Amino acid sequence: MSEFRLITPEETAAATAVLMETAVKVGADSYTYRLKNQTPHCKFGEQGICCKICTMGPCRITAKAPRGICGCDAHGIVGRNYLRFTAGGSATHSDHGRSICETLYHANPDGPYKVKDPEKLIRIAHEWGVETEGKDIYDLAHEMAYLAMGEYGKVFGYQNFLKRAPKHTQELWQKADIAPRAIDREVSCAMHMTHMGCSSKAEALIKQSLRCGLSDGWGGSMAGTEFSDVLFGTPKPVETEANLGVMKAENVNIVVHGHDPSLSEMICELAEDPEMIALAKEQGAKGITVSGVCCTSNEVAMRRGIPMAGNFLQQENVILTGACEVIVVDVQCIFPALGPLSKCFHTKFVTTSPIAQMPDSEYIEFDVESADEKAKQIVTMAIMNFKNRKPELVNIPQLKQKATVGYSVEAIKKTLDTVTNSHVDQLNTLKPLIECVKSGVLRGAVAMVGCNNPRVRPDTAHIALMRKLLENDIIIVASGCSAQAAAKAGLMDKRAKDLCGAGLRRVCELADIPPVLHMGSCVDISRMMVLVSDLSKDSEDGWQISQLPVVGCAPEWMSEKAVSIGNYVVATGLDTFLGVLPDVTGSSEVMDLLTNRVSDWVEAKYTFETDPDKLVDAMIERIEEKRTALGI
Amino acid sequence: MSEFRLITPEETAAATAVLMETAVKVGADSYTYRLKNQTPHCKFGEQGICCKICTMGPCRITAKAPRGICGCDAHGIVGRNYLRFTAGGSATHSDHGRSICETLYHANPDGPYKVKDPEKLIRIAHEWGVETEGKDIYDLAHEMAYLAMGEYGKVFGYQNFLKRAPKHTQELWQKADIAPRAIDREVSCAMHMTHMGCSSKAEALIKQSLRCGLSDGWGGSMAGTEFSDVLFGTPKPVETEANLGVMKAENVNIVVHGHDPSLSEMICELAEDPEMIALAKEQGAKGITVSGVCCTSNEVAMRRGIPMAGNFLQQENVILTGACEVIVVDVQCIFPALGPLSKCFHTKFVTTSPIAQMPDSEYIEFDVESADEKAKQIVTMAIMNFKNRKPELVNIPQLKQKATVGYSVEAIKKTLDTVTNSHVDQLNTLKPLIECVKSGVLRGAVAMVGCNNPRVRPDTAHIALMRKLLENDIIIVASGCSAQAAAKAGLMDKRAKDLCGAGLRRVCELADIPPVLHMGSCVDISRMMVLVSDLSKDSEDGWQISQLPVVGCAPEWMSEKAVSIGNYVVATGLDTFLGVLPDVTGSSEVMDLLTNRVSDWVEAKYTFETDPDKLVDAMIERIEEKRTALGI
Repeated sequence: MSEFRLITPEETAAATAVLMETAVKVGADSYTYRLKNQTPHCKFGEQGICCKICTMGPCRITAKAPRGICGCDAHGIVGRNYLRFTAGGSATHSDHGRSICETLYHANPDGPYKVKDPEKLIRIAHEWGVETEGKDIYDLAHEMAYLAMGEYGKVFGYQNFLKRAPKHTQELWQKADIAPRAIDREVSCAMHMTHMGCSSKAEALIKQSLRCGLSDGWGGSMAGTEFSDVLFGTPKPVETEANLGVMKAENVNIVVHGHDPSLSEMICELAEDPEMIALAKEQGAKGITVSGVCCTSNEVAMRRGIPMAGNFLQQENVILTGACEVIVVDVQCIFPALGPLSKCFHTKFVTTSPIAQMPDSEYIEFDVESADEKAKQIVTMAIMNFKNRKPELVNIPQLKQKATVGYSVEAIKKTLDTVTNSHVDQLNTLKPLIECVKSGVLRGAVAMVGCNNPRVRPDTAHIALMRKLLENDIIIVASGCSAQAAAKAGLMDKRAKDLCGAGLRRVCELADIPPVLHMGSCVDISRMMVLVSDLSKDSEDGWQISQLPVVGCAPEWMSEKAVSIGNYVVATGLDTFLGVLPDVTGSSEVMDLLTNRVSDWVEAKYTFETDPDKLVDAMIERIEEKRTALGI
Repeated sequence: MSEFRLITPEETAAATAVLMETAVKVGADSYTYRLKNQTPHCKFGEQGICCKICTMGPCRITAKAPRGICGCDAHGIVGRNYLRFTAGGSATHSDHGRSICETLYHANPDGPYKVKDPEKLIRIAHEWGVETEGKDIYDLAHEMAYLAMGEYGKVFGYQNFLKRAPKHTQELWQKADIAPRAIDREVSCAMHMTHMGCSSKAEALIKQSLRCGLSDGWGGSMAGTEFSDVLFGTPKPVETEANLGVMKAENVNIVVHGHDPSLSEMICELAEDPEMIALAKEQGAKGITVSGVCCTSNEVAMRRGIPMAGNFLQQENVILTGACEVIVVDVQCIFPALGPLSKCFHTKFVTTSPIAQMPDSEYIEFDVESADEKAKQIVTMAIMNFKNRKPELVNIPQLKQKATVGYSVEAIKKTLDTVTNSHVDQLNTLKPLIECVKSGVLRGAVAMVGCNNPRVRPDTAHIALMRKLLENDIIIVASGCSAQAAAKAGLMDKRAKDLCGAGLRRVCELADIPPVLHMGSCVDISRMMVLVSDLSKDSEDGWQISQLPVVGCAPEWMSEKAVSIGNYVVATGLDTFLGVLPDVTGSSEVMDLLTNRVSDWVEAKYTFETDPDKLVDAMIERIEEKRTALGI
């Protein structure tokens, strides 16, 4: 086994700094440049005390002006802004989920989209009380897809997936009146509550924020995850590589960026097509490399081993390598900057979704019916663009790490089965994991999630936190840009076990896993909800979710989705630690609700801490407190 | 007939100025005071170039910083803010509509809510292709209510009510891809499109703004209007009074404020209950006066003749009279200021909706099942509070005007039947109105709508515009706070015909109508959409909506609902004139789309003009242009 060495965020930063020189050369700007122009940020906005909800304003709260024109105070304004922020995130994740359901609705044994995990489809059907006996799998797929789309707008009742949660959790949701109804309804309800002259009571606004978050995590996101698995296969451990070095100078480079696997899966299919590869060779390339950025990268990495070029704040870098023929995007977290930036290079910036149309892009609308045809068009465009490279601009920083990715809940249980004594123990449970936690070999677990944010030097908080947690025998499940940070650094290389405390190292060796388990994209945080629910159900001592020595953490988050996630993670009973403050500091009441009183409803709360050292210590302390409370 | 005299907004302002002295005396502030503290407003906000959609920012566009951190430019930021503003309004109106459908779903011959217009219910059922033959009317009501609630979340298809529009209009919507799908879905879609890293192309954002508006006007609002009529009766002309003078010092005064008639109808019922009146007398009052503020006032005025205490910016004044025992509110446009203000008086501020919870209020949750019980509780509370008045604070400005209100489309057609030669002409059409327009007796019509906004001295723009339009033989249909401004001034008094040009005066005399027709609350702008659709269909020359000499105008608007309305009015083909600028001036592209290019899709556009004189001249000019184009 070759020598293993972590790549620090500082090393990545140094290696990519040369790309900034290219940027200057071609006259492009970059986020670091724009950030300078945009700082200092507006303090009213940062505190959440600016209100633009009607045109009597804008209003801003100060000591001299403690109420807006309508009479709303800081607590009402901050609460409303927080709820709208959540609604933005919930709608976004959930609409991604809807698009997956639509794809499933069009799945066809002879079409571009097939049912790759019929077993999972049948399992969900049984959960939902749908008869499967004797049904054609595609008929069942269409029936389930229709029902799933109905979850967005059903007239009565709560989200189907809530029944997956432990009874106690479900009861808390009912008692607090935050069990989510139809997904889209919770978004509309949030917008209504925050309209001029509606709710200004912080408590009501924060409750709806939890409900709207839950409709994401246990509704739209969960649909996105589950039916993506049905369509594209449930992830299982697979080898891949991460960081910009996965791009290959001699190949046609296609970068997929965004979130919805419906697009990226098709691009990957086509890029493997011998006809396409032959065409690439004709054009002077050695082959075709598809790599990913952001969550769509997580999707194709964990199902196909497609390498990860980078996370959120690396999206400009892939173009700056000068070796990107096409960057093709679907929805969310795509810098509009990619348009003008691509014009400085030969790179084609292809937008594909009616939801995410951008200036300076080539718009090739992607839809389920013509998916393969459009994918072919895009891959061909990339190949034919190879010859347009400007060789003097080509510079791919040679950094990459190996990673084992693809730890769905199903895969985690299968992995645990390998360390189970099959004569004595039950298979397909999380009991071996619970035993490790109970015995203290593992102290607990942290769900590391969320984006990058220029408020934090990219990846530094993710990696610093992870390293200390691993040293303290706390296992990590990661998703989204946090997962990619880990992969880029090398923490998803199984050899990273050597960075762990003795207990976790032994677990990694026995189970043959890396110490940071890649659970997928940001919608896949729903997997983590299933994981903790199953941990609770599998615990023989009747541990509730909120009692588990498990917490959530987003140290570098930036998007509305992250707040929606935070709300459903907290509402599911997991204490959640944020390294970037949401824009709520202007209201003592909202701060108190989020970091304290919310636990009266859901037995968990937020901790906000911008210092990574303090943040990780607070998490470890919380985990140890939970252990003590459990008497373990 | 007694002498008729208009009450100018200046007179009302002078009479209510004394209330400000009371405010000072009791230590309360008021919107005028808070406005001073909040001006000058933030210029970034006013121009729409501030972005708070992720926590990398806030970002603000300047010449030196032409792009946000993500690279989004002013056009993307302004477009996203505009779409979110629309989504807020659309969700709000539509959720009100949903609540009406829920009430209908619980209608019961023996319960508090009954079907008062079964004929209208059957008519809508036929439109929607629902079999009515032999069905119990309540069974039909529940079936239709369920279908209507389904319009918010149905998986496939477009809004049912779209079929009411002329074919040509429907075709335009299809061609521009703005025909609205499920109501809540358009809100979620808007939130997704505007999420960080999704749409930054102004054109796409403005298109979705139109679509989201249409899902309000031809979806949620129309459901609100139509099923309110089914439940509470379709309005027909009824006499009432308007302005603060409708409150009676010797009576228990209950003020209903908000939007949803489900609450206010019950309050009105109970206030007429002999048992309640007897209790009021026991407590030393002469009786009970219910009056209204804002749109809920329009609802009960046009169905019951309940007097209108005032419009949006008069809401604090009703408490400042010192004679308000209870102000009971449901949703939307309720100043959070009413909480602290009511504490300075004996007034009870009662909130009733989970959607609109406010500090410093008594929360009595209102629901369909316990409606009469809760209404009794609130009316009793008011009566028992009568004795707590502070007589030295009682001061009701003695201003009021008579008004004839209640011109639903059905009522307008019935009124027109009275001037139709029933031997020759078809009954129940708008043809007589079309004839008047064609002959030039009427030059055209303006739909006057929208709120008050402190940017304009209350009602001054509404009234100045109306007066000039009437002088120019342009008939006015009005709704919302604009309608109340007209009623307060006296323009809904039939004697106001004397302020009109000769043609309009003659029409008013023949048809026995006031020159400003009260069409209801802000959701009832959907009535105006039906009106122009029927005008188009009834025109023998095949006039399309966009060809009619009819325009829309909101001279003093402030809320997100107003922008949603503006979008659906424009998208329906009516040029729309706004007297307050939406926060879009920071993008030349969005400005050009709204005031120009949008007409390529929908044959109508916006005009923004803050000078009321110029605004009215522009409307008259547009109406005359339309006439010329029609050759009339």
